[in-house]
Amino acid sequence: MPGDRTLRLQHGNRIEALCVLGTCISADVYGAAPAGAVSFSVKHTEGVSMEVTCQSPVEIVSAPGSGTRWPLNKGTVLRFSMSRASTEVNDNKVTVSFYAEGGQPINQAGVFLTGIGISLDVDADRDGIVEKNSPNKASWTWGPEGHGAILLVSCDKENPFAVASDRDDERVFSKEDLLDMSRMVLRTEGPQRLPRGYEIILYIPVSEADKVGVFYVQNPFFGQRYVPVLGRRKLFHTVQYTGGAAELDFFVEGLRFPDDTFPGLVSIHVSLLETLAEGIPHAPIFTDTVVFRVAPWIMTPNTLAPVNVFVCSMKDNYLFIKEIKNLVNKAGCELKVCFGYINRGDRWMQDEIEFGYTHAPHKSFPVVLDSPRDGGLERFPIKDLLGPDFGYVSREPLFEAITSLDSFGNLEVSPPVTVAGKEYPLGRILIGSSFPTSAGRRMTRVVRDFLCAQQVQAPVELYSDWLAVGHVDEFVTFVPTSDKKRFRMLMASPAACYKLFREKQKEGQGEATMFKGYSGTDTKRVTINKVLSNNILMQQNQYVQRCIDWNRDVLKKELGLMEEDIIDLPALFKLDKQGKAVPYFPNMVTMIVLAKDLGIPKPFGPMLRGECCLERQTRSLLEPLGLRCRFLEDVSSYHGRLGEVRCGTNVQRQPFAFKWWHVTP
Amino acid sequence: MPGDRTLRLQHGNRIEALCVLGTCISADVYGAAPAGAVSFSVKHTEGVSMEVTCQSPVEIVSAPGSGTRWPLNKGTVLRFSMSRASTEVNDNKVTVSFYAEGGQPINQAGVFLTGIGISLDVDADRDGIVEKNSPNKASWTWGPEGHGAILLVSCDKENPFAVASDRDDERVFSKEDLLDMSRMVLRTEGPQRLPRGYEIILYIPVSEADKVGVFYVQNPFFGQRYVPVLGRRKLFHTVQYTGGAAELDFFVEGLRFPDDTFPGLVSIHVSLLETLAEGIPHAPIFTDTVVFRVAPWIMTPNTLAPVNVFVCSMKDNYLFIKEIKNLVNKAGCELKVCFGYINRGDRWMQDEIEFGYTHAPHKSFPVVLDSPRDGGLERFPIKDLLGPDFGYVSREPLFEAITSLDSFGNLEVSPPVTVAGKEYPLGRILIGSSFPTSAGRRMTRVVRDFLCAQQVQAPVELYSDWLAVGHVDEFVTFVPTSDKKRFRMLMASPAACYKLFREKQKEGQGEATMFKGYSGTDTKRVTINKVLSNNILMQQNQYVQRCIDWNRDVLKKELGLMEEDIIDLPALFKLDKQGKAVPYFPNMVTMIVLAKDLGIPKPFGPMLRGECCLERQTRSLLEPLGLRCRFLEDVSSYHGRLGEVRCGTNVQRQPFAFKWWHVTP
Repeated sequence: MPGDRTLRLQHGNRIEALCVLGTCISADVYGAAPAGAVSFSVKHTEGVSMEVTCQSPVEIVSAPGSGTRWPLNKGTVLRFSMSRASTEVNDNKVTVSFYAEGGQPINQAGVFLTGIGISLDVDADRDGIVEKNSPNKASWTWGPEGHGAILLVSCDKENPFAVASDRDDERVFSKEDLLDMSRMVLRTEGPQRLPRGYEIILYIPVSEADKVGVFYVQNPFFGQRYVPVLGRRKLFHTVQYTGGAAELDFFVEGLRFPDDTFPGLVSIHVSLLETLAEGIPHAPIFTDTVVFRVAPWIMTPNTLAPVNVFVCSMKDNYLFIKEIKNLVNKAGCELKVCFGYINRGDRWMQDEIEFGYTHAPHKSFPVVLDSPRDGGLERFPIKDLLGPDFGYVSREPLFEAITSLDSFGNLEVSPPVTVAGKEYPLGRILIGSSFPTSAGRRMTRVVRDFLCAQQVQAPVELYSDWLAVGHVDEFVTFVPTSDKKRFRMLMASPAACYKLFREKQKEGQGEATMFKGYSGTDTKRVTINKVLSNNILMQQNQYVQRCIDWNRDVLKKELGLMEEDIIDLPALFKLDKQGKAVPYFPNMVTMIVLAKDLGIPKPFGPMLRGECCLERQTRSLLEPLGLRCRFLEDVSSYHGRLGEVRCGTNVQRQPFAFKWWHVTP
Repeated sequence: MPGDRTLRLQHGNRIEALCVLGTCISADVYGAAPAGAVSFSVKHTEGVSMEVTCQSPVEIVSAPGSGTRWPLNKGTVLRFSMSRASTEVNDNKVTVSFYAEGGQPINQAGVFLTGIGISLDVDADRDGIVEKNSPNKASWTWGPEGHGAILLVSCDKENPFAVASDRDDERVFSKEDLLDMSRMVLRTEGPQRLPRGYEIILYIPVSEADKVGVFYVQNPFFGQRYVPVLGRRKLFHTVQYTGGAAELDFFVEGLRFPDDTFPGLVSIHVSLLETLAEGIPHAPIFTDTVVFRVAPWIMTPNTLAPVNVFVCSMKDNYLFIKEIKNLVNKAGCELKVCFGYINRGDRWMQDEIEFGYTHAPHKSFPVVLDSPRDGGLERFPIKDLLGPDFGYVSREPLFEAITSLDSFGNLEVSPPVTVAGKEYPLGRILIGSSFPTSAGRRMTRVVRDFLCAQQVQAPVELYSDWLAVGHVDEFVTFVPTSDKKRFRMLMASPAACYKLFREKQKEGQGEATMFKGYSGTDTKRVTINKVLSNNILMQQNQYVQRCIDWNRDVLKKELGLMEEDIIDLPALFKLDKQGKAVPYFPNMVTMIVLAKDLGIPKPFGPMLRGECCLERQTRSLLEPLGLRCRFLEDVSSYHGRLGEVRCGTNVQRQPFAFKWWHVTP
């Protein structure tokens, strides 16, 4: 916005002008002077404050009687402003008198002034209250000391009859809608009516028509009506000016989450327009601007308290659901079962959706991110989740083909971490990719870009393409602890498994057999000795360990972890015909985490004295941390199909107490 | 890239490993220990340096004879590295001995080490020389203290037979091509050959395949051949490892200028891959990365010395070209005439192209930006300009319709300015837009985004849609001066014109007539009195002045200008049926600026004592600044078609001496 506004005085006549409070009008005295003028003086009413600025310091001539006189130099400028709004049009004035050599007056130039207050206001200090003309309303900064107003994407659905979410809906269905929106106030102050030829309009740039919507409240006191004034169909709105001191209430909603084509900031402007005469277009003489940031979509790590657990009911997983139910009851949250007519034979609840939330000073609600992977469950998030104060968002590629890496088993988030002094108070997103050398599978670009654009959980790309399914949750997860570190990172580890088996072999347990009561395919007798003597399996697992170690090293660096923050859970893999890894026995790291209660895939490891040594080992690693291990049989309904407990379930969690706008990305 | 690399020791056997110089290998001793071990000691060859890190401080047991012994605790880690490359495979080793309670040795774990040096190097300090393993090679920062390598877009055309520019051409036509490219060196050091199962590959992420190309020089000494190794068709390249200390020369070219989908940074990686056995995929064990920024496209303001002046030869502009030729000769630069078979009846040389350049420490050359506006001249930049060391770039919208605001008469750049302490040493780009309230014309998005993405000349959007043609060069331009400020901003000013006319009227010159010898349409007798008594014209020009003042105020703020930096040239406009402004007489501000020589549209103002008072006024404003005014008759061939001198010409200028990478955007 311009600082000073230029006004053109003209000797011999008196013009009229509006002066917006808080702005400054500057007029070129030299340019307005008549021929022969060498000095000038200024008179003004007391509603006006004024200064004269000259290029070069000048000696001021004071003539007896008349006030101060300034010599007339090129570049001499009159700057004046008003501090109070006018009660009547033209109730203030400024008069410049020009004098010839010798001091006799030649001519005058003057301006009648009408003071008017215009201020577009928002909650720039994020305390839920709209301040008056905050100096910070037109900019946005991050961090605890930061400022700038915040907008929620109305991606929930207050209206049960609407097909899509509120943002596709120009009508405000109920007051509930307004509660999601951010308040914006237009304050005006001035005479009963604006002078002829002036109008005030509210507007947004074309580029923001698909990002923000504004509603106006008609008679806020009784029988309110909410009228859309700005948005997809309307770029500007002529404001109804009512004299005196007036406050117009507007409500603002976001229409889109940030992504690679939208950094997240939107601005709304109000302008005072002037028309000089019929048939001559408007000219803008004052503009005020406010800026909002659209609140990001935020993921919730395993360390946050679970609220609801979701699982699909299939023909073959009755027992599994029963076991999950027990676990969920112990953890004190709720189980929600998605039935066949919705899941349509798709059991991979983890892969179809990711639960998260969005948050503003005035409101917060959960938002589900829908994966581009459509395996049958695609109707579930819209049918069963989207609703009042439950939002929905999705990103689908236009052209790219979808791979298994687009499933959200390949999308994790770490607990809060500090890395070499840099804080990630909302953790960091983890996604699996191919190693760039091989033009391999990678999560589709639009989703990766979407996750990066949220800014507050800076994603880390890991290397998961070495796995057949290719999901990060096949080799890493996080569990909460009550010690100083607050969490541990668990990783699948063939090395740990071989170490354990060798120890057992030394202890003379080499003939202990695995897969007892295992309903999976390879049911031939497998002993510790057999496993240890299988060189191909060993080489394959050395390779797998290398791949996991690459990720382990990246995670140590990107999450700032020490060895003692990591727990290696025994695991074995084998390579398929394509040379991609699949679990050799149920993969314990792919567990469901409900606070202290863990639902772990039952590994069917070697039985020693009636106990599975893998389960025992896992207990010995996790129970000292105050965690409760429960081993769930998932072979028939999940593991046999290359998934585990976590893949068949999904957890909606409490949001962070931490405010995302306090992050410094 | 990972910091430490994890290596898995195993008691009872001795593994082999490559150790890349400058990296650190960490091994979990506790995990490698046999059952019953309580302490350990370490031996290593002198090529290896080593440390033991424990979670908790431990007291070290020293047994007579044997070396230091450490107690065996969970989390105790061995970190070792090598400082010299091996001459033979496995010529170094580390041995860990484990001891039982009481101190008797139980077992050992060991690793044979081969030290190898791998470093991908670039000119990260921008002195034109590729340094060795610079710590800054993998990052990029702006400013005089900044670092990071730079890449040129090979948008010129060394090959006279090629259709398009070099970047579309996988073959290197000549050494000239290489001179445009940035040198990249891969340094390796080690034994005669790599141990079995290892290979070194160079690669780029898929996302960069269309942004960077890499060539390799075969036998650099005689009969060189340049082979494309990375780029559109090739994502990775297996490096030929030659033992001892080797340097492989690569040459890197940019394929795309920055734009809204490409911030300008590209990275190239080299990885050391390991295969454990036949049929088992590679695992990466080390990666080195270099980063380049693609040099931006930079515009040249009027204050830079002119090199070539371009004009179209038409049937009707023979005299105009003659006048331009005189001006160009006086200014000491060269006139290039574009003839009919190329311009195909399109005379608007200013609108079709914008001259600029690109610059790297090793090379700089001019680059023409081609406007999406295609009026006949579209073949000119490719046919006549694109060539050896003369680049070409263009941006065309996919869907948006083209308007007059997409012509480059609507694209200007200011001289270097400092605004409230912030420096713009390359000036700021000025583009004209509509005022957002009216969903009016605006320069097409792809071009605006392209200009912003160059980052070094932060664009300012002005309001030019109030004009029929809608170009910024209809109301603002810049001229060089030899004083401290270095330049003045000239603006069209109806106010200045009315002021002048009123003075002349007072002096009794009211009957002086305009448009004498004017070949344009309205040739009826027009006097100063007539102009001043025309109220409609006055109101229209008051409106125009408001629009110009809005821009004037924006420019004062965004370029940090004072009143004395601005010169108001007399001008008058009238509104057409659509309410858009067109010049009333030839618009002097739309001039051509060749150093101190100005080619100004002849205004045909009121004649007083045989002299045009507008020309006189303009001289009196500009000549004291050391500028030479020459008034060129452009009515018949340009003004009559709503253009002026500048619109029919274009100037290629010297580049800035200032290095763009010293800017801090």
